[in-house]
Amino acid sequence: MTDDFFTSSDTVRQAAPLKHVQTVSLDGSVELELGDTLPSVTVAYETYGRLNADRSNGILICHAISGDSHVARHDEEDDPGWWDVAVGPGKPIDTDRFFVICPNVLGGCRGTTGPNCLNPATGRPYGPDFPRIAVGDMVRVQRRLLDHLGIETLIAAVGGSMGGHQVLAWARYYPECLWGAVLIATSARLTAQALAFDVVGRNAIIRDPNFRDGRYYETGASPEVGLAIARMIGHITYVSRQAMDRKFDPDRLSPRDVQTGFENLFSVGSYLGHQGAKFVERFDANSYITLSTAMDLFDLGDTRDKLARALDRTPCRWLVLSFSSDWLFTPAQSRELVDALIATDKPVSYCNVESDCGHDAFLLPDQVDSYGALMRAFLEDLSREGDAEPIADEAPYGHAPTSIFRSHRLDYDRIVELIPAGAGVLDLGCGKGSLLARLKRRGHYPLLGVELDEKAIIACVGRGLSVIQTDLNEGLACFADKQFDCVVLSQALQAVRDVEAIIDDMLRVGRQCIVSFPNFAYTRYRRRLADEGRAPKPGGPGTCEWYDTPDIRFLSIADFEDFCLARRIEVHRRIALDTENTRQIDDDPNLNADLAIFVLSR
Amino acid sequence: MTDDFFTSSDTVRQAAPLKHVQTVSLDGSVELELGDTLPSVTVAYETYGRLNADRSNGILICHAISGDSHVARHDEEDDPGWWDVAVGPGKPIDTDRFFVICPNVLGGCRGTTGPNCLNPATGRPYGPDFPRIAVGDMVRVQRRLLDHLGIETLIAAVGGSMGGHQVLAWARYYPECLWGAVLIATSARLTAQALAFDVVGRNAIIRDPNFRDGRYYETGASPEVGLAIARMIGHITYVSRQAMDRKFDPDRLSPRDVQTGFENLFSVGSYLGHQGAKFVERFDANSYITLSTAMDLFDLGDTRDKLARALDRTPCRWLVLSFSSDWLFTPAQSRELVDALIATDKPVSYCNVESDCGHDAFLLPDQVDSYGALMRAFLEDLSREGDAEPIADEAPYGHAPTSIFRSHRLDYDRIVELIPAGAGVLDLGCGKGSLLARLKRRGHYPLLGVELDEKAIIACVGRGLSVIQTDLNEGLACFADKQFDCVVLSQALQAVRDVEAIIDDMLRVGRQCIVSFPNFAYTRYRRRLADEGRAPKPGGPGTCEWYDTPDIRFLSIADFEDFCLARRIEVHRRIALDTENTRQIDDDPNLNADLAIFVLSR
Repeated sequence: MTDDFFTSSDTVRQAAPLKHVQTVSLDGSVELELGDTLPSVTVAYETYGRLNADRSNGILICHAISGDSHVARHDEEDDPGWWDVAVGPGKPIDTDRFFVICPNVLGGCRGTTGPNCLNPATGRPYGPDFPRIAVGDMVRVQRRLLDHLGIETLIAAVGGSMGGHQVLAWARYYPECLWGAVLIATSARLTAQALAFDVVGRNAIIRDPNFRDGRYYETGASPEVGLAIARMIGHITYVSRQAMDRKFDPDRLSPRDVQTGFENLFSVGSYLGHQGAKFVERFDANSYITLSTAMDLFDLGDTRDKLARALDRTPCRWLVLSFSSDWLFTPAQSRELVDALIATDKPVSYCNVESDCGHDAFLLPDQVDSYGALMRAFLEDLSREGDAEPIADEAPYGHAPTSIFRSHRLDYDRIVELIPAGAGVLDLGCGKGSLLARLKRRGHYPLLGVELDEKAIIACVGRGLSVIQTDLNEGLACFADKQFDCVVLSQALQAVRDVEAIIDDMLRVGRQCIVSFPNFAYTRYRRRLADEGRAPKPGGPGTCEWYDTPDIRFLSIADFEDFCLARRIEVHRRIALDTENTRQIDDDPNLNADLAIFVLSR
Repeated sequence: MTDDFFTSSDTVRQAAPLKHVQTVSLDGSVELELGDTLPSVTVAYETYGRLNADRSNGILICHAISGDSHVARHDEEDDPGWWDVAVGPGKPIDTDRFFVICPNVLGGCRGTTGPNCLNPATGRPYGPDFPRIAVGDMVRVQRRLLDHLGIETLIAAVGGSMGGHQVLAWARYYPECLWGAVLIATSARLTAQALAFDVVGRNAIIRDPNFRDGRYYETGASPEVGLAIARMIGHITYVSRQAMDRKFDPDRLSPRDVQTGFENLFSVGSYLGHQGAKFVERFDANSYITLSTAMDLFDLGDTRDKLARALDRTPCRWLVLSFSSDWLFTPAQSRELVDALIATDKPVSYCNVESDCGHDAFLLPDQVDSYGALMRAFLEDLSREGDAEPIADEAPYGHAPTSIFRSHRLDYDRIVELIPAGAGVLDLGCGKGSLLARLKRRGHYPLLGVELDEKAIIACVGRGLSVIQTDLNEGLACFADKQFDCVVLSQALQAVRDVEAIIDDMLRVGRQCIVSFPNFAYTRYRRRLADEGRAPKPGGPGTCEWYDTPDIRFLSIADFEDFCLARRIEVHRRIALDTENTRQIDDDPNLNADLAIFVLSR
C-alpha cells in the first residue's frame, strides 16, 4: 500500500520495534493518584540533540493516545517519527539547540509499563488487573525519568491532545520544573461529545466476545473488531468535515481494495477499514481502554476559578495553540485555559491557528508555518538572554506604509508618558507589539496584548511579549474587574462594531483607560465634506478609501465628549495631536487635531 | 425510568404495536431502482385530518431513519408521536386543514415491507436477501399508496433528514405531484463524515457474531451489541456539542443506574447505554443496514449543475430549512440545494434557523416557533386563494419607527418606476418584503429576496414571497451571471463591509442594478460636521448614533460617482431625493439630496 490515500497523520507509526528506544526501570514502586500502587515501572524513551553542561536545555514532548517515544527520525535511515514536521535539526523544536526527551506514557503499549506487561505478582500480563491510572501518574513517571537523566528543570514541556493534558499536569504537580508550557489542541477536560465517542469506542472493545474481560493475551485471539471500531470512530473525530469531504467526496463510490472483513462500499469505508485493521497490529486494546479512560477522567475543573487554582502555582510562561477546525478539542476549550491563566496574571500567549484539517492539524505539515513559527519564537525567547531586537513602530490599520506613522509614533510617545511607572498594561489591538515593547523596556509588568492577526501574534511572541488572539468585537469577558492598571485602545475604537460594549469593558477591566482615535472633525476633513462634498478620509493620500477602510465608526472629539458625558465616564486627560505636523494641539482641538487621546475611568 | 434525563427527540418511540396504523398491500410487484424486484409490498401508514372533497389537501410526511408512521397522537389517550410539536390540530402542519399521510418507509421494520418480513419465495424472513433499495424506491411505494388513497397531487411533501431525501426524490420522480416541498435538515448527499459514521455503525453490526450474515431471526439472538453501538454513534451525531455539554457536563461522573452491559462510568455513558439498549427492542439490524445504506447511496449530484438538473422538472415551490448547529446535515448542504434551485429560477425560500440543538432540532419544541412558523406560513400560502394582505412599508435599518420612512417610501416609488414592466428582480436586504410585495402586485417575475433577519423572512414567506437567508457580506456566489433583469440594493450599501465585492457581484448577476444610499454630503450633514464639529447623522433625531448605527460606510453622491467612474461602471440614471421634504432634487444633488438612487450596469 504505497497509495497516498491511506496515509494519515499517525499511520506512519510502525508495528515494528523502535530502534533508538532506551529503557530505564525506575527504583521502587509508583504510588498512583487513584490509590493503587505499581510495584515496578519501566519507561521507554527516546532523546534527540545534546544535553548541555548545566542540563538546562531539556524539552519534554508528551505524546497523544496513539503516539509513542518515536517523535522524530534520528537519522535519514530511521523510520518516520510522528512529529517530524516539528522536531529535528533546524525545526521549530530545534534539536541542534535543545535536548528533546520523548517517553512512551505509563499505561501505553510501546515499551513503558502498561496492561500488556508482566504483572510481577502473577507472572502473567496485567490485563484487566492493570490499575486505573490518571494523567498525573503519567507525569509522575516522567518526572522520575528526568531525575534519572539528571534534569531538574525543563525549558518547556510540549504536548498536543492527551499530550497537552500531561503538560497541564506538569504545571500543576511540578510547578517549579518548567520555564515554559506549550499546549496544543488540548483542554482542561473533554467535551461531553468527545467523552461520548470514547465511551462508544470502549463499549465496542469490552463487548467484543474476544475481549474476555481483558484476559485475552493467552487466548490466541484479541478484540480486534472492537479495537478497530474504536479506532475508526477516533479517526473520524481527528479530522474536520472539510478535510474528509476533500479526501473522500470526489470518488465516494470507489473504495480501495482492502481485505479487512469490514464493509467496503465507499471510499471512506475502505480507508477506515484499513486504518482500523492496521491499528490493531500495533496497539493493545487494554492500553486503549487505560489511556482513553485516563484522558476522560482528566479534569482540571469546570469553572475559571477552579482552573485558575489548578494552574496557580507555576511561574512558567505559556503558549496555547488551537486549530480553528478542531471539533474534538475545540478552540473554545483552549480559550477556557487561556482565560483561567489570564485570571491569575500568568504570562500567556494564545493563537487559534486557521486550519481546515481538524484536530490532526498539529501533526500535519499544513499549518506548521503558523504553529511551528509560534513554537519556535516562544522556545527561542525562553532560552534567550536579554531583550529581543527592537522593531520599528508600525502604521495603524488603514494607513499606508508611506503615511506619517511609518517610523515614529507621536501618539505612542504621549500614551507611554500617560501610563504610570511600572503599571500593568493591557493593549487592545496591539499589532506587532510596538507599544508593548516600549513599555517592556521601561519595566512595566504585567503586559498583555490582544490582537487578531496571526502574523502580528507571531511577531509579538518573538519579541517575548504575551498576546492573546481575540476579536475585540467579542468583548473582554476573559478579564476580571480592575485587572489592569491601564487598558489601552490605540486607534482601534473606530474599527470596533460595538463601541459601547468595548468602552464599558475597558472601564471595567482597567483602573485607567487610554483611548485614542482619529478626529473626523479635523479641519481638513471638515473642509473635504463641506467644500468638496466628499467623505472625510483620515490618513491622507494613499490610505484606505470609504469603501475599503477598516474604520467603521466615525466620530469627532466632540462626539466622544458627549458619549462620555452621557455615560458618566470620567475624563482625566485629553491630549490632542496634529500628527501630520507632529505637534500637540491646545487651541480648539475638535477643529485642529487629527488624533485625540483620552484618559478615562469610571 | 421517568427521569427526564433519558428522553430524547425520538425515544418516545414505542416498541409496542401502533394502534392507529392502517396497512395496504400494493397490487403486483415493485421494480427497484438498483435492478431487483420485490414480488409484493405492504405499506403501513397513518392519516390525520380529513381528505377534502376534491382530494387536494393532502400533505405527505416522510420520516427519518428511525421514525415510523406514528408522526403524531391521534387523540389524548394515544401514544406520543415523533413530531407532535409540528403536526396536529392548530399546529404548524394543521390537521384541521390538511389531510396528513405518514407511511412507514420501504425497508423499515414498523409495518411496511422490510428485511424482517416474510420472503414469499422462501416462506422465511428476507434477512440478507432483502434487495438493496434506494430512496427513490421508498418514494415509488409512497406514490402507489397515494394512488390507493385516490390522491393525485399533494399540497406538499415534508421531511427532515432521510425524510428530506424522500421529498427530494418526490420532486425528481413525480415533479407534477407537488405544489410545495419542505426540506428540513437534509442534503443532496451525505458529507463524507456522516457517511463515515454510518459505515462504522454498520461495521459494528455486521461484525457482531450474532449477526450471522443477517440470518439471525431464527437463532434466538440478534446483533444487539452491534446495533446498540450503531445507535450510540447516531445519537452523538444527532445533537450539537453545546447541547451535549449542557446535558452531561455538569455531572459527568454521575451515571444513572442502567443495566446494559455497557460501560457505566460517565453520565453520558449511561445515557448512550440506555438509548442503545432501548433501540434494539424496537428496531431491526437488517433494516438499519438497508435504510442507512439507501441514505448513504442517495446522491443528487456533487455539482450545482447536476443538482439543478435533478430538480429541474418540478414547478413546485420550495421551503428549505436548516439548523445552525446541525453538523450532520449542515447548513452549507442546505445551501447547496438552495443554490441549485436558484440556478434554475425555482421559487425557493431558505432559512438557517438559529439553534444550538443540532440535527435533532427539527424534532424538538425548542425552535418550533421559528421553523414551525415558516412551515405554517409556507403551507398556508400554498393553499391560499388570492394575494395576502398588504403590510405597510418598513423604515430602513437604523431608522427609528418615528422617522419619515414609517408609512410611505418615496424611494420605493421611484425604484418601482425604474424597473421595466414584468422584469425579474432580486432584492438584496429585502426586509419584510415591502418592495417585493409591490412588485409582485405589478406582475413582476421571478422575484427573490435576500435577507438576514429570521423574523423578516417569516414575514416574507407569509406574504408568498421567496426569500433566501444570506449575509450580504458573504457575497452573491449563488447567483448566475445576468440571472436577474434587475438587482436592487436599497439603503443597504452603507451597511456592507466589502462594498466593491457586493457591487461587482450585483453587476455580474443583474442586467441592470439599482443602488440607493444616504448621501453624507447632504447639506444638513455637512453643516453638522462643519459648524458643530459632529459626525453626520442621517435619519434625524431618534435614529442611531455614531456608535450604534448599522451604517459602517460613509459616502457622498460624489464619492459614489468617482467609485463608478474608476471602475468603468455605467451609470444610466441618477435620482436624488430629499426624503425629509418628500421631493426629488435636480439642483446640486450632492448638496441638496439626502438619498440617491443609481441605475447601473457593466
